Amino acid sequence: MNTLISTLRGICGDAHVLTHDDPTTDLSAWEQDWRKRSRGQALAVVRPASTAEVAAVVKACAAASTSIVPQGGNTGLVVGSVPDDTGTQIVLSMTRMNAVRAIDKDNLTMTVEAGCVLQNLQDAAEKEGLLFPLSLAAEGSCTIGGNLGTNAGGTQVVRYGNTRDLCLGLEVVTASGEVWHGLTGLRKDNTGYDLRHLMIGSEGTLGIITAAAMKLYPLPAVQLTAWAAVPSMAAAVQLLGLAHQKLGPGLTGFEVMGQFALGLVDKHYPQLRVPLFKEAPWCVLLENSDSESETHARGQFEALLEAAMEAGCVSDAVVAENIGQARGLWHIRESIPLAQAEEGLNIKHDISIPVSRIPAFVQETDALLLQHIPGVRLVNFGHLGDGNLHYNVQAPQGADGKAFLRDWEERVNTLVFDQVARFNGSISAEHGVGELKAGKLPHYKDATALAMMHAIKRALDPQNILNPRKVLP
Amino acid sequence: MNTLISTLRGICGDAHVLTHDDPTTDLSAWEQDWRKRSRGQALAVVRPASTAEVAAVVKACAAASTSIVPQGGNTGLVVGSVPDDTGTQIVLSMTRMNAVRAIDKDNLTMTVEAGCVLQNLQDAAEKEGLLFPLSLAAEGSCTIGGNLGTNAGGTQVVRYGNTRDLCLGLEVVTASGEVWHGLTGLRKDNTGYDLRHLMIGSEGTLGIITAAAMKLYPLPAVQLTAWAAVPSMAAAVQLLGLAHQKLGPGLTGFEVMGQFALGLVDKHYPQLRVPLFKEAPWCVLLENSDSESETHARGQFEALLEAAMEAGCVSDAVVAENIGQARGLWHIRESIPLAQAEEGLNIKHDISIPVSRIPAFVQETDALLLQHIPGVRLVNFGHLGDGNLHYNVQAPQGADGKAFLRDWEERVNTLVFDQVARFNGSISAEHGVGELKAGKLPHYKDATALAMMHAIKRALDPQNILNPRKVLP
Repeated sequence: MNTLISTLRGICGDAHVLTHDDPTTDLSAWEQDWRKRSRGQALAVVRPASTAEVAAVVKACAAASTSIVPQGGNTGLVVGSVPDDTGTQIVLSMTRMNAVRAIDKDNLTMTVEAGCVLQNLQDAAEKEGLLFPLSLAAEGSCTIGGNLGTNAGGTQVVRYGNTRDLCLGLEVVTASGEVWHGLTGLRKDNTGYDLRHLMIGSEGTLGIITAAAMKLYPLPAVQLTAWAAVPSMAAAVQLLGLAHQKLGPGLTGFEVMGQFALGLVDKHYPQLRVPLFKEAPWCVLLENSDSESETHARGQFEALLEAAMEAGCVSDAVVAENIGQARGLWHIRESIPLAQAEEGLNIKHDISIPVSRIPAFVQETDALLLQHIPGVRLVNFGHLGDGNLHYNVQAPQGADGKAFLRDWEERVNTLVFDQVARFNGSISAEHGVGELKAGKLPHYKDATALAMMHAIKRALDPQNILNPRKVLP
Repeated sequence: MNTLISTLRGICGDAHVLTHDDPTTDLSAWEQDWRKRSRGQALAVVRPASTAEVAAVVKACAAASTSIVPQGGNTGLVVGSVPDDTGTQIVLSMTRMNAVRAIDKDNLTMTVEAGCVLQNLQDAAEKEGLLFPLSLAAEGSCTIGGNLGTNAGGTQVVRYGNTRDLCLGLEVVTASGEVWHGLTGLRKDNTGYDLRHLMIGSEGTLGIITAAAMKLYPLPAVQLTAWAAVPSMAAAVQLLGLAHQKLGPGLTGFEVMGQFALGLVDKHYPQLRVPLFKEAPWCVLLENSDSESETHARGQFEALLEAAMEAGCVSDAVVAENIGQARGLWHIRESIPLAQAEEGLNIKHDISIPVSRIPAFVQETDALLLQHIPGVRLVNFGHLGDGNLHYNVQAPQGADGKAFLRDWEERVNTLVFDQVARFNGSISAEHGVGELKAGKLPHYKDATALAMMHAIKRALDPQNILNPRKVLP
């Protein structure tokens, strides 16, 4: 192993190959996952500065049969970017590759390295008067390479799609250390299999994304935010349909939040002043991005909310008067996970269901859980516009959180995932598989699909050195 | 072989397995490609009626090591859906699988079988008050399975993307005759590798698409069409940027047409009355799809065209007054290939280039061609909004078309494709590879990408029975 470490030091420089040999070096930032569910031990943390260095590192590791765990901002939620505890894997941290290589305004694209922090890309685009629409809670520290590796979702998917839908080309280092130069930035290219989409969402198990060509959009003239109280989940779905009709592609956000979830925000962060939640079982946050003017956008929102009230799917609503108020509403939505953590440990799910079936899913699954666990509390919120719920399960009032997790986590997961399967949904909507859910795929994924996945993995990484045991069990 | 044929007859019924044994049966509709560039001979044309029949047919063929050429409407332009001339391949015609299995209005999806004709899907969506936005010249006879197999483009890509961007899930029969049930209709599903995008655009070489879940959109309230004369290709690109800014996602079409191309329409179809082309080297057709009203859409178009004239990138423009006029303008655009055929044989290209580099590409490549072939005429038109040009090369005035093709086709292809490569473009933007361009990939495709494609093909179709010699040379 010492030979490999010195080879890697020769490639990246001594300062960029960190090991436990130096007892003053703390590698926990790279070895511990974000949710602190798993703590691994790395042979080394390697921090290349260029695609050529990544390729050389992979070749060296392939020659030594040493496996590689690619890592961006390490903010993933499914234990996908940390090493196992054997001390034999290297963590390939991409954060030094953080250049914006080019912005092409006429082509509406930017070419960026994998280690760029998402928020920096949003800012770089905005400086050019353009929008990079990917937006999610971890944007201050997650990297675009990680977003691509996991096909991250976020809050504007209803209009702009997931990360994969924003990507036009990739540069990738393969398991044998070859470089695929695919950074074309073309909107149309039908010269063979779509390797781009195969790499995106493969969580570093098929290749290492070193750079990407991403789509940009014109900056909207204005973004308005509204908050509506709705009498039922079915009413929320009806409101979504009306919003699609009335706002067209102006609809860039549609978040649903359950009363109990908002109650937790109200309880733990009373200064946030959650509106309208006491009178309705669900609230919806809507965002309208308009290419014209604030007057136009307000007119559209008013027409939508008027029609919705007439149809009975909205009982009350407010439209943010200014950016400060709009941010305040989004802040409430984003505070749900934190409020939930304040309340105690809970069992998290990131599921998707066809939008049309969500009302029945929620009703049935709530009832099933309450039947099994009297008093259980459901923290249900999410991106209803994409059919994506964060359907989280909190211990009954006063119950011990740790005991609840120990006794119930596996059983609750099974119950919820079985329901998801019954409703043709997905057990991982936007977070990915990682190590956390790899074991679930044989049961919940179509067997033919899983067999194809295994065949592709064997074909592209025959030594199984790229992020082994992630995604595929 | 007689054993196989009788097995296939047992699966699909005698009437749906056509062979040359019956001399009255004419198989040319399945054996001859659309552009009449290649005439093959099939062992049989097999027409299954269900996914189970497709799976059984594939199993029988796999057992007999007989290769399968999947076929939809057989309107492809790159010889991708016809058999070779050995008489040993079966054509698997999907046109009997033409059911719309479901339309889910709340989920904005429809589940359709591969053999559905595109226009029927547009109509089925419209009946529900929804839009299925894929639109292309062959829509009256092409099938959605073929659109998916080739990742077809068309005229609304600037807003809605290519066929792959409209697909949320697939049902596929693999090379071993297993069925992947992936028709979820989910907008978010991160449970493993994206097999959907791998199958889309693989031209039937990795699996046989039997059904798909496709996205629907709200019907726009109005679609307006404008026609603008622009002083240069650079001005057309500038106009595109302004249109993105002013119309936002309302911009659903942006087609550029060269003066010579429009002159051919004027010459061969004078009744179409081509506007403005005599005074400008390029015309642009713009489409604005609005979710509000005609008044609103007209106001937007007027503001755009005013700004464009002020900026000097439009010299004159008309906005269609009614649907009849709008159809007339689109009809002119769609008549270019026909007018070109009236004028004589020509060398066709379907290329893409980053939008920002198109003006320089056209200027340089035009000059190069004129230098090599004095008097050569360039029929240049296409989807500028996507960076996609149909950059076609017509013999000099009075020259013999056949002799021109014989002497020049290969040399002109090389010259144009080398230019495309220099400008980081694609030699096949929306038509695919088929047999026609398979031989070009080793030269123009990234070697690492090509190696991955081969590895994936071997992994998913180890017997090489699915559309062999298409895509991969």
